[in-house]
Amino acid sequence: MSSSGIATKDLKRRLGARVVRTDEAARRAASFDSSKIPFLPDAVIHPRKEADIGVVLALANKFRVPVTTRGRGTTLTGAAAPLRGGWVIDMLGLNKIVINEEAGMTHVQAGAKVADIQRAAEAKGWFYPPDPSSKEYCTIGGNIACNAGGMHGGKYGVTRDFIVALRGFLPTGEYVEWGTATKKFSAGFNMRDLWIGSEGMLGVVTGAVLKLIPQPAARWTLLTSFRDETCALEAALALFRSRVQPAICEFLDRESVLCAERATQRTVFAGQAGKPVILLELAGSKSEVREQSKTVLAWAAAHATAHRVARNRDEAEQLWAVRRKCSGAMFELGDAKLNEDIVIPMRSYVKFAKFLVRLKRESGLHVPTFGHLADGNLHVNIMYHRANRAETRAAEKAVQLLMETVVALGGAISGEHGIGLAKTPFLRIQHSPAQVRAMQAVKTALDPRGILNPGKMFEVFHVWKHEKLAVKLPWDHK
Amino acid sequence: MSSSGIATKDLKRRLGARVVRTDEAARRAASFDSSKIPFLPDAVIHPRKEADIGVVLALANKFRVPVTTRGRGTTLTGAAAPLRGGWVIDMLGLNKIVINEEAGMTHVQAGAKVADIQRAAEAKGWFYPPDPSSKEYCTIGGNIACNAGGMHGGKYGVTRDFIVALRGFLPTGEYVEWGTATKKFSAGFNMRDLWIGSEGMLGVVTGAVLKLIPQPAARWTLLTSFRDETCALEAALALFRSRVQPAICEFLDRESVLCAERATQRTVFAGQAGKPVILLELAGSKSEVREQSKTVLAWAAAHATAHRVARNRDEAEQLWAVRRKCSGAMFELGDAKLNEDIVIPMRSYVKFAKFLVRLKRESGLHVPTFGHLADGNLHVNIMYHRANRAETRAAEKAVQLLMETVVALGGAISGEHGIGLAKTPFLRIQHSPAQVRAMQAVKTALDPRGILNPGKMFEVFHVWKHEKLAVKLPWDHK
Repeated sequence: MSSSGIATKDLKRRLGARVVRTDEAARRAASFDSSKIPFLPDAVIHPRKEADIGVVLALANKFRVPVTTRGRGTTLTGAAAPLRGGWVIDMLGLNKIVINEEAGMTHVQAGAKVADIQRAAEAKGWFYPPDPSSKEYCTIGGNIACNAGGMHGGKYGVTRDFIVALRGFLPTGEYVEWGTATKKFSAGFNMRDLWIGSEGMLGVVTGAVLKLIPQPAARWTLLTSFRDETCALEAALALFRSRVQPAICEFLDRESVLCAERATQRTVFAGQAGKPVILLELAGSKSEVREQSKTVLAWAAAHATAHRVARNRDEAEQLWAVRRKCSGAMFELGDAKLNEDIVIPMRSYVKFAKFLVRLKRESGLHVPTFGHLADGNLHVNIMYHRANRAETRAAEKAVQLLMETVVALGGAISGEHGIGLAKTPFLRIQHSPAQVRAMQAVKTALDPRGILNPGKMFEVFHVWKHEKLAVKLPWDHK
Repeated sequence: MSSSGIATKDLKRRLGARVVRTDEAARRAASFDSSKIPFLPDAVIHPRKEADIGVVLALANKFRVPVTTRGRGTTLTGAAAPLRGGWVIDMLGLNKIVINEEAGMTHVQAGAKVADIQRAAEAKGWFYPPDPSSKEYCTIGGNIACNAGGMHGGKYGVTRDFIVALRGFLPTGEYVEWGTATKKFSAGFNMRDLWIGSEGMLGVVTGAVLKLIPQPAARWTLLTSFRDETCALEAALALFRSRVQPAICEFLDRESVLCAERATQRTVFAGQAGKPVILLELAGSKSEVREQSKTVLAWAAAHATAHRVARNRDEAEQLWAVRRKCSGAMFELGDAKLNEDIVIPMRSYVKFAKFLVRLKRESGLHVPTFGHLADGNLHVNIMYHRANRAETRAAEKAVQLLMETVVALGGAISGEHGIGLAKTPFLRIQHSPAQVRAMQAVKTALDPRGILNPGKMFEVFHVWKHEKLAVKLPWDHK
């Protein structure tokens, strides 16, 4: 029996066969995330309590068993796939949510669903802004692992900006707490924020204290259309110069709009067919929203080819539905997608819009692009047909050029998805050798036996060379 | 000649005698920070450009010369004192500030003064909220090193919440950039936030990109008084439950009020002599402030023994002047002060108020306390006379009990000052052995030769056993 086999047997003896599952079905189910490239683990652990994870890690560390922590597995990067086998810890059972009304904080376990946290906060008049599009499925633990964002990032910030404290376990199985349930701390190195975004490679988060903000009393939604992409991005810059901070400022380029229109069989904006759009939401007190909406309407009159205010929540909801449809609808343009969540500094918006025109022309591919203009986080979707060798090569080349351009423009290769496996070929475009060495030194210092999520982030992996499972996941856009 | 002597000579040859100062006056001036415990360095380096620091560190690392980075030296903890001698890098010459109006960001060098950054932002309609009381002297580099806070922390956050990107040098002299000038990034480990609050022990920050927020259009100031400290803290909790987020919510206990009154020869609040007060500021759009002020006035009528609205900026300024005077005025109560910037979770406010009553009674000392109620960061000032052995022992005992209580109540031993030397005896109350080991492992990984600010944070140092210099610093309260 291999040392991993001995370790698994030992673990089963300690935690029981209901916690430690080794049946084929359980192992298959935990073998892949939303990247759909499977790697079979030896066992799947469903901890009943947080302390179980200490037991798992102490044993894994002793026997050098790879450990991958997983929430719902919605990540697109492969970060939750057990590349080297070993054990998968499934956090879904640890999902408590407690709202602290007075302090405006919530105490959650890592397996709590993000939308459940939002609803629990809202019921008490508080608001948890980070809202990845998978929020009805994904867990806060996963959001912490990749520092998830969403549409509200520009005004309110991302997951990192709402984490007050974390607790969990070091790879040795030792329990640790980083930060206290207070808005300030300056007592020792900031290991809390080092864990955030570390993709399960430095420790296992079991619980968190999140900051909440007062629920906005009013919201106001506006749809605007523009002559072309460059005009839209220039207009957004003009809006930000006016010091208005929209809660959401979503951009859809012409291809994204066409996809959404085909998918919904409806025109996004009557009379504005085939034009890029910006969907805006203001949020705040009634008077604040009233004040700001005047500025925004004046801006729209000056910059947009047309604009339409949603008269009520239902009409606003219809506008947002279009935004949500566009991503899935893209599979009309190809059966494979390289979905890159790059970030561009505002000063480079117009340059980037011009680059995208060139990228589409030179690659011959459809590259529908949409995203969050208030923080520069754009989702660039390189579409191709997997069976078409020329298209596959063109897509590979396009993604490389995209990443090089993003970094040259002062941006980031990922804003909210993380590196996982999918972005490993580009890490060294973003980071110098000294930067990568420093990160690897931290990894080795905290996980000397390399058991936590091995093979991710630093080793190069080409997702497009791997066969994907033909599975339909509940959160798949289509 | 010692290896440090050889290294200093070599450095002087490379950077010149105007950059590398070894004269007695320069060395004495850099031998202490606001903790006033001096340690003489071998040389003081005034870099002309950021790249000079790479040269300094590469050489320091080769010859194992201790390096302490210093801004203006306003820290009270000893974090900027060159405990082991070696070289001090004085960052004051690197002080550029550039505002990026569109993106709402500012690009600064580490030696830029915090108040200068605030003024530059304000001139363009933007606001940089963190405001340590030393802001007219201290540098942004120092603020990053200790994750400085100030009065605005509850609503807006602390330095960490405004850092978008950092650049600087590893102890090896290698240049690195952590984060991009964008509000999102999820690309590799978050070394940026690991550097923030690491007190110059993991790298040398030379520049930063800071996030700005729109300048509030309106401010509104209210002074309230309460029967006793417990009533004041209970009232604050009631205010927070109403979902009002004051921009500032400053508490002064009775002893602090009496100190301020003695110092200014004026009554803080006519007719309310000897009562604790809360000073509130609302900030936001005019309509937002108007709405919230109604809620706050109703709250004051229900909870305070009296309240007074400042009718204009001048009157508001007079109220804030009292708050600023109280700290210096405390030296009426003793010639020595243990100034502890602890943080208490809101749920423990009332318990902590009762603990303070007991602490004063049992120690027989004056312990005037004031601070930021919106984030629980209270400044507890244990006053004693240095020549009085019994008082000194009582102060020592009181600070130990204070720290144990703070941690037992779920709080933090420091909210904005950091550990430095002054709080090293308490680090292990806050952090378990596993937590301290993890931090030390990170230190060793990033600074294997231990050249950056050696002896700080982890080694126990008793400031009260050391003689202080009898110097008056420009930012001393009195």
